[in-house]
Parts: sequence; structure tokens; C-alpha cells
Amino acid sequence: MTVNSTQLTPLLFMERTAEVFGDKVGFVQGDQRFTYRQLASETTRLANAFRAAGIVDGDRIAYLSPNTAQMLIAHFAVPLAKAVLVAINTRLSPPEVLEILNHSGARLLVVDESLRSVVQPILVEAGGVERVVVVSVEPTPESDYATFLATGSDDPIPWRVDDEYRAISINYTSGTTGRPKGVQYTHRGAYLNALTEIIHSRHSPESVYLWTLPMFHCNGWCTTWGVTAVGGTHVGLRAVDPGEIWRLIAAEGVSHLNAAPTVLISLANHPAAVPFRGPMTITTAGAPPSPTIISQIEDLGATIVHVYGLTETYGPHTICEYQPAWDGSTHRAALLARQGVSFIGVDPIRVVDDNMDDVPSDGTTMGEVVMRGNNVMAGYYNDPAATAEAFRGGWFHSGDVAVWHPDGYIELRDRSKDIIISGGENISTIEVEQAVMAHPSVLEAAVVAIPHEKWGERPKAFVVAKPGAVVDPEEIIAFVKTRIARFKAPDAVEMVEQLPKTSTGKIQKYVLREQEWGDHARRIN
Amino acid sequence: MTVNSTQLTPLLFMERTAEVFGDKVGFVQGDQRFTYRQLASETTRLANAFRAAGIVDGDRIAYLSPNTAQMLIAHFAVPLAKAVLVAINTRLSPPEVLEILNHSGARLLVVDESLRSVVQPILVEAGGVERVVVVSVEPTPESDYATFLATGSDDPIPWRVDDEYRAISINYTSGTTGRPKGVQYTHRGAYLNALTEIIHSRHSPESVYLWTLPMFHCNGWCTTWGVTAVGGTHVGLRAVDPGEIWRLIAAEGVSHLNAAPTVLISLANHPAAVPFRGPMTITTAGAPPSPTIISQIEDLGATIVHVYGLTETYGPHTICEYQPAWDGSTHRAALLARQGVSFIGVDPIRVVDDNMDDVPSDGTTMGEVVMRGNNVMAGYYNDPAATAEAFRGGWFHSGDVAVWHPDGYIELRDRSKDIIISGGENISTIEVEQAVMAHPSVLEAAVVAIPHEKWGERPKAFVVAKPGAVVDPEEIIAFVKTRIARFKAPDAVEMVEQLPKTSTGKIQKYVLREQEWGDHARRIN
Repeated sequence: MTVNSTQLTPLLFMERTAEVFGDKVGFVQGDQRFTYRQLASETTRLANAFRAAGIVDGDRIAYLSPNTAQMLIAHFAVPLAKAVLVAINTRLSPPEVLEILNHSGARLLVVDESLRSVVQPILVEAGGVERVVVVSVEPTPESDYATFLATGSDDPIPWRVDDEYRAISINYTSGTTGRPKGVQYTHRGAYLNALTEIIHSRHSPESVYLWTLPMFHCNGWCTTWGVTAVGGTHVGLRAVDPGEIWRLIAAEGVSHLNAAPTVLISLANHPAAVPFRGPMTITTAGAPPSPTIISQIEDLGATIVHVYGLTETYGPHTICEYQPAWDGSTHRAALLARQGVSFIGVDPIRVVDDNMDDVPSDGTTMGEVVMRGNNVMAGYYNDPAATAEAFRGGWFHSGDVAVWHPDGYIELRDRSKDIIISGGENISTIEVEQAVMAHPSVLEAAVVAIPHEKWGERPKAFVVAKPGAVVDPEEIIAFVKTRIARFKAPDAVEMVEQLPKTSTGKIQKYVLREQEWGDHARRIN
Repeated sequence: MTVNSTQLTPLLFMERTAEVFGDKVGFVQGDQRFTYRQLASETTRLANAFRAAGIVDGDRIAYLSPNTAQMLIAHFAVPLAKAVLVAINTRLSPPEVLEILNHSGARLLVVDESLRSVVQPILVEAGGVERVVVVSVEPTPESDYATFLATGSDDPIPWRVDDEYRAISINYTSGTTGRPKGVQYTHRGAYLNALTEIIHSRHSPESVYLWTLPMFHCNGWCTTWGVTAVGGTHVGLRAVDPGEIWRLIAAEGVSHLNAAPTVLISLANHPAAVPFRGPMTITTAGAPPSPTIISQIEDLGATIVHVYGLTETYGPHTICEYQPAWDGSTHRAALLARQGVSFIGVDPIRVVDDNMDDVPSDGTTMGEVVMRGNNVMAGYYNDPAATAEAFRGGWFHSGDVAVWHPDGYIELRDRSKDIIISGGENISTIEVEQAVMAHPSVLEAAVVAIPHEKWGERPKAFVVAKPGAVVDPEEIIAFVKTRIARFKAPDAVEMVEQLPKTSTGKIQKYVLREQEWGDHARRIN
């Protein structure tokens, strides 16, 4: 290392932006406007308050909060205090939150007033938590948070770290089963991933970024740090309400947002949907977007950036880079629906078989997606066994199943456990879902395997109709058979009011499977 | 370091872009078109040829070349061969080139056919150079370069380095006096600076980047690596010819270029100048651009990104970030002409007095600009004394004199040696030059100090008139007095056909001073 090398940390971003864009609005929260100078000054004060409360290097500080200014500030104040941020999924049940508090060993918990009821029943059992600070929805000088802040001084703390490989955050995966695992991010990884998020989502100082994506999810795909780095404006959002999103897009001149396809579906089909008035870039991930929703969003005037990743990869790891040759192609939306290629600076992604050999790039052979590089986690916190298992062969194993196309783009076919094997033929539930969703009356669909005496497994679709539409299940099945191989069409279509989902919009297929496989010992046939 | 951390190197960029944009045109050279697949494959072959020729880890390989595809390929092939690139200024005289060859200890020299005459007289004395490879202007299979390439295999070499702090290049400063110093860049610094160049110049895969800036100058401000990283298209240019530049802008759909203000002046005042038909971003540095040229270029429809740096800072280190409050300001062009604030991720720039204390941010107190961070060089090659001197107090000393404005933006007032002290008052030659250039008949101007019996020093202006304009020196002096303090107006204006310049467009004021101060022992009075 040379004398001139500064250790990489997102703290550098807040230092610079507070200097360069000090008077600019950094965070919009309802009627409140925080300039970057205010954000930085509260960051320093809060970090000093943490230290005054006894926090020492490497301690974990947990947050349970929607997308507020205080949650953004936490992304800088906690590392500035040389502590590690544990931003907890706000949709978890009290026992799940308790498990994370205890596993992370958090000494301090900051909770938004709206979520206090989640925390109250478990505090007795969360023995390591020495102090809970409640952030009021309507700030007052007497609030708990204000009182806590007042214990911190305004003495500057250098926006520096001594080792860029130290942990900056631990993000617990909202696994559908099993105990949560704490994914450790480093200052270096967060810094590098924030820069590539800026490049791939094309952020600039003019960005007005709406927080549809939870900040607790991969630290908002590192966009907490990235939008701050360029000096864009964050627009807070307490809950994903399509009407409120459309209102804020118009009122605040939103130019960028990140959202799972399910959020895009609710946006595009909302009565308030109108063509975007200015440039709008929507970065989507969390599930493979259907060609249908891609077309719908593009018709409203937005540019879609389709990315893919996991909590273990700091959020997005691949991008479906647009190729000029796709212009005017009839397959354009289908090409855009693929997960694509690695981000800039990341080791090339691979799709491998059980022996860690690359599968052929033939667009049909399935394999597991594995990753490596600076935006792959440092490991699971206090879980060497799970870390070793995840990194067997030197690559992080995503558990996602994909094909590799001849052009080098990957396309997810399934989460490992969601593959349908029917009469020895693999069926991708995603492919079936996309065919179902192409039907004009369908709003959303999920396909799972159901047991079948002859074929082993067969697909079944759970379908939400568009408001006012009347849907005949048989018609859906016939429609799907016109679009994909007949053997892939669902045996059954069940109309439902809504699909079970995680807080980040992933459909919980295991819930659907449970109800279909109740009597079977295994979930694969 | 964790198992998942890949050492930072621009080699990762070529690896990815060749995979993702393999069929895309990466380099345009006259009628030739190189796809990224071709660029990457020639990179591998050339690196293997270097190794076959006996190059070992850390060896220096020198290039003397205009902005060709081969010069771009060198930026990847030399580090892929684990060697260090020494791209030599093509405007240097044979003895100057010899000095660099000998100081760097280059074992191999690649020279463009057009520059062979520079090399031929000195090869006898360049004892360390074991092999010279000549690149033909018109490629043939029998050319020296093709023959050399044929000695390399196509065996893949991993696009990886074992230590990101290793040197990737040595760039010799074209100092106006004294022996050249070899500025060492690291893989890490080049990687990080390339990413921030992308962000600040807003490059994307759609970028069509015209090489008006020499690649030998700070490795093209790291744009060699940056445009490759995003998969943009490089457009080569052998010489800065305004007519050819205008032709290429139209023919190739150029969207970006980097150029010193003097190039912009020649562009804006060329008969072929027309408003840009598409989006155009021009990043300018190398000398403070006058508000006049900024307005001219903006009137043609381009966005100006004004940056500032030195060879020692990988090229640009600061950017004049645009503030929304400047919209409609009558001072807008003057605000844009300031050098601004540090790049994202770089330590905040400082302006200091002789005791290394910050000067007040009052817009009038002058001090020296000092820098630190990941885009400051690792030191001068084989020159610990010069390195220690440059880094006294732990910061790199630029030798540039600036004021610090209340908004934190720096504004260059002079190269240290160009300050005019007249009757105890400091006069910035840049300020005087900008006043002279505001005159409608003036194309270009340079101001230097001349000795004066009473006042010590007084400003004198050397002025190039616009084509066809008749300029009265007295009228210029009177005009300047209407714009800035009268004591700053030049005592004399001399009309000249052209100004002496370095290859990168910097005006060589020392040449002008020499002729004015010939009889004086010192160059300051």
C-alpha cells in the first residue's frame, strides 16, 4: 500500500457530498426537507451519540425502520461510529426479529415508532440489547431519538476507516425456511458496488431517487450509498402504495426507482398510471420480470434496467446489458427479461453443473449460478459452516438455476427447489408463469409443481385476475398451450385474490406448495 | 482480505467487455473497425508475444504512438504481460525520448511508423532497448508489428493481478524545465479513476468517444480504460485537426471527447463548426477554460464538464460540479470556469499556505493546491528525492496556485511560477487572459510577467487575432481596463501569429518569458 492510498469506504461519499452539495435537498420525507449538510451533521452527531452510549469498534447496531431519513443516516452514522449496521426486515414477526437481534448480538436497537409493537413483546428475551431508541413519526424535540441525538457532540469524526475489509453491515437473508443467515458486507465491497450501481443505473447529481425498495434489503442494493455519492436526492417512502408512488413521481420529479417486478405490475395497472413526464429509469430485480411487464413499463416511457443478484452479492450482480442489435427485434422484451451478464468489475458469472464445470452455452442446459468478486459477501456472520458450504469450490453458490445462452447471457429458470420435473423433462416455472401472464386478463401468476401419479410432477398456476376481469381457468390453459410446449402448460389454474409474498415482493411459492403437497413426505416427485 | 476479493485492475474491464460486447465496434481507425472481441484477442496475443520476447514481471515497455488501436491495445496487453506501460509524448525531441527510454529502463519499444524518424537517431544510445517493433500506418501481414504479433500464442492469460498496488504505467511529465519525472500509476488507482471518469463524464455503452486527447497523456486521463469498461466505442485520431474532428463527429456520431481549452477554441472557431446533432459531452482540462470558450461550446449544444488535474493525479482530480442555483446566473460561465471540487472517492482537495494550513475560503487568498487519495500517484519512478519533495507534509504538492471560494470550489490563479507580483499586489495571469479573450477579435491570449523598474513586474499579453480581424493593441488594453482592475491590465500587447504550446495544448509561457527576461538573472522581480 502506498502513502497515497485511502481505504475505500462509503463514508467518503457523505464527506464529499456534504461539502459539494451542502445546500441541496438530500432527503425528502413528506413535508420535511433535509439538506446534505443537515444529513451529514446529524450523521456526525448520531455517531458521537453511539460512542457516548458505549458502542465500541465492531459492535452491531440494529435498525427496524421503513425508508426514512433516519434509516438513510444510519448507513453512514453506524460505520462512522466504527460499528456494523444490522438493518432488519420490517415484515418479520417478533420471534424472527428476536432471532436476528440475538444472533447478531446487537447492543443497540433503533426502531421506528410505527414498528414499536413488533419489538415490545421480545425485548425481555433480547438480552444483548442494552438500549432501544424510538424514532417518532412526527419529530419533536422531546422524542426519544432527539434526546438520544442530544447526547452526541458535533465534534468531527474523520470519514475514514483503517481497513477497507472491515464489515460495514450484516444483512440477514429472509430465507423462506431455516434460520436466518447474516450476510457480511465490507466497506470495500459497499464502496465498489455503489459506484457500479451508479454506472449501471445511470445516476447523476440530477437523480431524484424514490425509495420503493426497502433500505433493509441489501442496504437498498447499496443505493443508499450510491445516490449519496453522486449527490442525488433521496425521496423517502414508508410503504409501497402505488397511488402514493404516482403522486410522488409527479410531485418530486422522480427520475429513478428500484423495484421488484411485482411492484411494477401494481404501478402499471394502477388507475393513476400515466406516461412519465421526464426521463425515468427503473432498475428491477428480485424476480425475473415478464416480457409483458417490461413492455408495459417501457410504454409508459421508462428505461428498464434489469438486474439480478442476492443478498450475498450486495444486491444486483448481473445486468441485462442492452445490445443495439435488439432494436426492432420481435424477441426484444424476451431478451430484456434475461438476467444477463456480470456488473463491471465483477468476475464473470458462471453457470455450472454438480462438478463445478461450466454448462454448455446452449440456452437449454440448466445449471447453478455461481459468483465471485468484490461484490460477493465476506461470509455469513458467526457461521463458518454455512459460509464454507456456500463457497464450496471457491465460488458463491446462489441456489438459482439458469441456462447460459450462446451470447453469454444467463437466464434464470428457477430457484433450485422450484424446478418441475415432469416425465423426466425439466419445466421452468418461470417460463410457464410468463406464458400465463401474457394473457390480457391476468395480473399476476405463480406456478408450482404438484404431485402427479403418472408424470411425477405437473405445473399448477395460481392466478390473480386484473380488476374487473372475468377469467376462465380452462381458457388460460388453452392460451398457454398456444405459446409454449403443451407439456409445460399447467394441469390446473386456481384463481386467487392475492399471492403470498415476502416483504420485498418475492412470491412465497413454498406456501403454495405446502397446500398442494400436504400429505407427501417430500416436496419433489 | 477475504477469499472473494478480486484485486482491482483495469484488465477486468477488457475481460468483461469482450464477453458482453464482443461483436460491437470497440475501435474505429479510418476505414478499419475493430470489434471488442478482436481487441481482446489481439491483447492476449500481444501479451504472449511480449512474454515470448523475454519480458518478465515488472519490465517496462515503451510506446511512441499517436491515438491508434495499437496504442489502446497497449493499455491492456502490457499489463496483461505483467509489464509496465511507458507511453511517451510524441512531440518530444529525440534527446528527450532517449532520456525517458534510459530512465525507465524500457526493454522494448513499440513505435508508430510515422514517428520512426524520432527514434532512429537515438537507438544506439538507448542501450537498454533490446527490441524495436514498428507499427505500420497501413497494416500488412508482413509488417514488423504483424510479425511480432505472430510470435505470440492465443493461449489465454488470466485477466488478473496478484497485487492491485503494482505499477501499471509510468507517465513522464512534460515539464517545461528540468529532467522528466516518471509518474507511477497502480492497477488500483487506474481502476478507481476509470470508474469515476465514467461517472463524471457520464459515459455509457452508447458512448462514442473521439480521441482528441493524446493517450500518452495520463493514459488518456484513464479514459483508455474507462470507455472500454462501459463498452463504448473509441474513435482514433492521429492528429488534432479541427476539420477532421468535425468530420468524425458527424460521420461516427461522436458523443464524447476530452480536450484542452485550446483545442476547443480551434474547434469553435473553425469554418466547419455547426451545432452538434446529438448529445455531446466535452470534458475539458489542461488549462483554465475562459468563460468565453465555455459559452461558445455550450452555444453549439454541448455539455461542458470542466475538470482539473495533473499527470501526478491520473489526470483529472477535481470537477466543477454544476449547481442548480447557477441556472440563469449572469456569472454562470465564470462559475463554470472554476476548477471545482474533488472527484467522488478522492480525499477533499486543499489550498494551503507555506505552513500547510488551509487558506481562508474567501475567494482572494492564494495558496498551493495539494491532493491526496487513490488517484494520486504512487511516487516518481526511481526518484525518491523528488517523491519526498512532492509529498512533503503527506500531501502531493501540485505547484498550482489557487483561491478557495466560500462555496468550497477552488479556482486556479496560476502555476506558481506564473504569478505576477506588481507593486506588492498579486496579479493572476489567468484573470488577465480571460479579460483579453473576452474581446470579440481575440482568438487566444497568453499573459506573462515582464520586469518593470518601478512596480517590479507588470503583465504583458501575447495575442492571436481571429482570422481576418484587425486588432489594435491599445484598444485591447483599454478594453481590459473596463473589465478588471486597471492595475491588472497589461502594459503591453503584442500581436503574434501563434502561441508556443506543448503537445497537449498548454501554452508554454516560459518561452514567452525567456524572450522578455533575457538579461535578468531571475525570472521574478
